[in-house]
Amino acid sequence: MEPAALIGLDWGTSSLRAYRIAGNGRVLERREAPRGILAVQDGAFAEALAEAAGDWLEAEPDLPVLASGMIGSRQGWREAPYAECPAGAPELARGLVEVEGPAGRPVRIAPGLLTRDAAGVPDVMRGEETQILGELGARGTGDGRFVLPGTHSKWAEVREGRVTAFATYMTGEVYDVLCRHSILGRLMREGPPDPSAFRRGLDKAAGGAAGPGRLLHDLFGARTLGLTGDLPETALASYLSGLLIGAELAAAAPSEGAEPVVVLGSGTLTALYLEAARHLGLAAEPGSPDCAALGLLALARAAGLLGTSDAHP
Amino acid sequence: MEPAALIGLDWGTSSLRAYRIAGNGRVLERREAPRGILAVQDGAFAEALAEAAGDWLEAEPDLPVLASGMIGSRQGWREAPYAECPAGAPELARGLVEVEGPAGRPVRIAPGLLTRDAAGVPDVMRGEETQILGELGARGTGDGRFVLPGTHSKWAEVREGRVTAFATYMTGEVYDVLCRHSILGRLMREGPPDPSAFRRGLDKAAGGAAGPGRLLHDLFGARTLGLTGDLPETALASYLSGLLIGAELAAAAPSEGAEPVVVLGSGTLTALYLEAARHLGLAAEPGSPDCAALGLLALARAAGLLGTSDAHP
Repeated sequence: MEPAALIGLDWGTSSLRAYRIAGNGRVLERREAPRGILAVQDGAFAEALAEAAGDWLEAEPDLPVLASGMIGSRQGWREAPYAECPAGAPELARGLVEVEGPAGRPVRIAPGLLTRDAAGVPDVMRGEETQILGELGARGTGDGRFVLPGTHSKWAEVREGRVTAFATYMTGEVYDVLCRHSILGRLMREGPPDPSAFRRGLDKAAGGAAGPGRLLHDLFGARTLGLTGDLPETALASYLSGLLIGAELAAAAPSEGAEPVVVLGSGTLTALYLEAARHLGLAAEPGSPDCAALGLLALARAAGLLGTSDAHP
Repeated sequence: MEPAALIGLDWGTSSLRAYRIAGNGRVLERREAPRGILAVQDGAFAEALAEAAGDWLEAEPDLPVLASGMIGSRQGWREAPYAECPAGAPELARGLVEVEGPAGRPVRIAPGLLTRDAAGVPDVMRGEETQILGELGARGTGDGRFVLPGTHSKWAEVREGRVTAFATYMTGEVYDVLCRHSILGRLMREGPPDPSAFRRGLDKAAGGAAGPGRLLHDLFGARTLGLTGDLPETALASYLSGLLIGAELAAAAPSEGAEPVVVLGSGTLTALYLEAARHLGLAAEPGSPDCAALGLLALARAAGLLGTSDAHP
C-alpha cells in the first residue's frame, strides 16, 4: 500500500466519499458509502467512519483525517461555524474543529462559507468551497468562476485564491418538487431524455423579456405544450429541465467574452450543464473529477496537518 | 321569489358556485358547494347540479342555464374547445356546447380561451374570461388589464371587448409545493402572517438584477435568512410569499403611468396582491365581487339565450 499523506472525507447530506490522498495530490484509493449525515442515526458518525474506512485508519495510524461538507453543519458531527467571504484556504483552515473519531483518532472538520448580497440576504455552502480550492490547485490559478450543479447549484467567484462571492440556485430541487408534486407532473410520462425539448426549454428561458417573475409564467408551458399536443407527454420533463437550467445559466453565467465558467462535478447533470452552456453560447469547461480530494489536501496543508516533511511541492 | 333571467354556474376544479341572476345583473341568490369537477365521481354532473340547485331549476323551468370554468374541460362534463385570442363575448358565445341536465334541462357550457406567445408556447384559461367579461360590463368599458390571483394567477389584456393576450403565473402552486415539499418548508414554523417579512420578500424580488433565473436563487433566501437568525422561523413563509408575488408583479404588472390593473377575486389573496402592488408602487384596484355572475349574464345575452324580451338594457 503506497503511503498516503491524508485521509480526506467529502461528507455530505446523502453520501460519504473517502479518499486516501498522496502528498502530490494523487488519489491512491477512493470509496463511496450511502452514509450521508441524514443516513446516520443518533450521532453515530465515528461508527459510520469506522465502517467506511476503519482499515485505512488502522493501517496508517498517524495519518491526519480531514472532512468537509454537511458533516460540519448543525445536523452533522459537530458544527464548524461558517467562514465569511472573502475566504480561501487560510481562513478555512483557521476554522477547523476537532472531534474524536474511531479509537480516539482525531478528525478535523472544515467550516463552510457564508456570504451576504447587497440586500443583506445571506447565502451558505458546505463542501463546495473545498472542491473549488482543489480545482484552483489543479489549474495553478487563484482566479475563476465556478458552478457546481446539483440539487442546489452553487456559483462562485474567486479572486486571488479567495471566494469573494457566491450564489445558490435551487434549480435541481425546484425541478424535483414540480415533477413530483405539482400539476406539471400530471401530464408527464416517463421516457428517455428529449434533447430537442430540452433545447426548446433553454431557448424559452434565455429569450424574451427579463424579470425574475417570468419563470413563474414559463413553467406553465411545461403543461400547456402537452395539453395542446405541441410536445409529447414524454418530452415535458426535458422541456422543464431546459427551462430551469436555462434560467439559471442566463442569470448566473458570465457574459460574452468573459473567462469560461468551470463546471465542477461528475455525471449526467454536469454533462447537461455543459450542453446547455454550449447551446446558449456561454463559455464553459469541465473541471477535475478529483477536485474534492485535492481541496481537502490543500486545506490540510494550509492547516499545517501534513507536517514539515510535506511542504508545498 | 323575484324572477331571474339566468341560472349561472361558475364551476371550477374545487367548487361550484351557482347564481340566480336578474336581467339587470343583480344577483338574486347565490350558493356555493364543494362540488368542483374533481369532487364529482363517474361523470355525475347532472346529479351534482340537481343537488346544488334542483329547486331553482324546478321553480323556473324555462330559465336558461349557463356554466363556465373547468366544467368545460376534458375532465369536466363535456369539453368545450378553446376559443382563440383575441376573443370576447361573441366568440365565446359561438363556442357553447350543450349537455342534458336534471330532468332533461339543457345546460350550456362556455369554452375557455387559448393564446400563444411569440415563441409559440400556448396558454389557457377556463372561467377567468367570464369574470373579465363581467367586470368589463360593470365598468362600462371594453379595455383594461386584469389579474386573477390564485393557484395559477392569470394576467389578461383586453382591447375593445376582446381578450387580446394573457399569461398564467404558477405563483400560488409554486408557493404551496415549496412550503410542503422542499427544504424551505423544513425551517418554517406556523405563525400569523408577517407583513414586514412579506414586504422584505417583495423588495428582494422587485429589486436587483433582471433575469428569470434569479428567482431560483432568491428562493434560497427563505432558508438562509432563517439559518442565520435574520428572520424568525415563523416569518419565513411570509418572506417566500413576498418573493413570489413580488416576482409575479414585477414581471406582469403595468409600468408607471399605465392604467391600473384590476384585481379580480375575493378574500385574503386578493388583499395580499393589492397590498403588494401598493408597496411596489404599481397602480392596482379591486374589481367587482360579482364579476363571474355578470360575465355569465353577458355571455348568455351574446348567445341569444335570454330571449327578445330581455334586450340590452
